[in-house]
Amino acid sequence: MNMDIATVNALPYEDFVNILGNVVEKCPIITAAVWSRRPFVNLTALETAISEFIDALPESGKEGILRCHPDLAGRDLQSGTLTRESREEQAGSGMDALNSAEASRMARLNEEYKERFGFPFVICARMNDKANILRHLSERFPNERGVERARGIEEVKKICRLRLQDIVLIDAPNKL
Amino acid sequence: MNMDIATVNALPYEDFVNILGNVVEKCPIITAAVWSRRPFVNLTALETAISEFIDALPESGKEGILRCHPDLAGRDLQSGTLTRESREEQAGSGMDALNSAEASRMARLNEEYKERFGFPFVICARMNDKANILRHLSERFPNERGVERARGIEEVKKICRLRLQDIVLIDAPNKL
Repeated sequence: MNMDIATVNALPYEDFVNILGNVVEKCPIITAAVWSRRPFVNLTALETAISEFIDALPESGKEGILRCHPDLAGRDLQSGTLTRESREEQAGSGMDALNSAEASRMARLNEEYKERFGFPFVICARMNDKANILRHLSERFPNERGVERARGIEEVKKICRLRLQDIVLIDAPNKL
Repeated sequence: MNMDIATVNALPYEDFVNILGNVVEKCPIITAAVWSRRPFVNLTALETAISEFIDALPESGKEGILRCHPDLAGRDLQSGTLTRESREEQAGSGMDALNSAEASRMARLNEEYKERFGFPFVICARMNDKANILRHLSERFPNERGVERARGIEEVKKICRLRLQDIVLIDAPNKL
C-alpha cells in the first residue's frame, strides 16, 4: 500500500482502523487507541505509540494479546481461518508445507507450550524459517512464564513493525 | 448457548476466546486477558473482571474500544459486514428498517457525533427502540468529550452484560 505518514495522519479513525487494525493480530483496539495520539511525525513514532500502549497494559492484557494469535501450522491454517496477514506470514516461513513428521512435531510442541504457559508460542515468522521456528519452540519451552510472556510480546512487536512497513512508507533517511 | 460457569471455567483459552471473544465488540483481547483470572465464581464475577479490565485502560484505550464499534444503521449494516451480534442487536431495535427520513437523520447525526468526538455514538440497542436511540443521539451530542467517552463505555458494559447472558447461565438466585 505504502502511504506516507501525512496521509496516515489525515485518515478518519474508521479508515485508520480498517487499514491498520491488524498490525497487532486481532487487536484493532490497539490501533484504534493510538489514533488518539496522531499526528505521528513518522512511521517510527506510530510504532512507538503502539509499543507504549502494549507496555502499559497489565500482564493479563499482554497475555490477552498473545492469546489472540493463532498457532503456527495450527488448526486456523488447516481450516483456512487465519487472517490474511498471518496466512501470508506462515506460508512465507514454510508453515503451510510441513512434511508429516514436522507437522506432528510442531503440533505436539505447540500443545505442550500452550499447556505450560496458557498462551500460544508467538514468533515473527517472517524473520525465521521452519528450522529456526522449531528450534526456538524447543529452546523457549523451559523458560519461566514471565520471561516467555515478555519474549512473546517482543515477537508481537517485530510482527507489528513488519506489518506497518507493508502499509506505511519507511521514513526517508534524509529526514531522520 | 447457556453454559454454566463451571463449564466456562474449564475451557482452554482458545475455546474461551472463540465463544466469548466478542462480548466486547471486536475486542477479543479483553476476553483473552480475563481468562487469566478464572475460575469465576459466577457470571457476575466474569462480568466484573471484564469491567475492571476496561476501567484500568488508559483513556485512549477506552476510546479505542468505542472506535471498534460500528455506527448504528451505518455502512457495516448496509454492506453486511456487521458482526453477528451487532447485526442481531441493530435489527432488534429497528435499525435495519428505517424509513428514508429516519435513515438520513441517523446518518447525519452519526457523522456530526463522530466529527465532534472522534469516536462513534455507542448505545445498547437491545435496551432502546428506534425513537429512543435517535433521542439519545441528539441529547448526548452537546456533552463534553470526557463525559461522552464515559457514557459510551457504560453502554459497552450493558451490551457486554447482555451478550454474556446469551452464552453463560445467569447465577441461580439461591446461589447468591
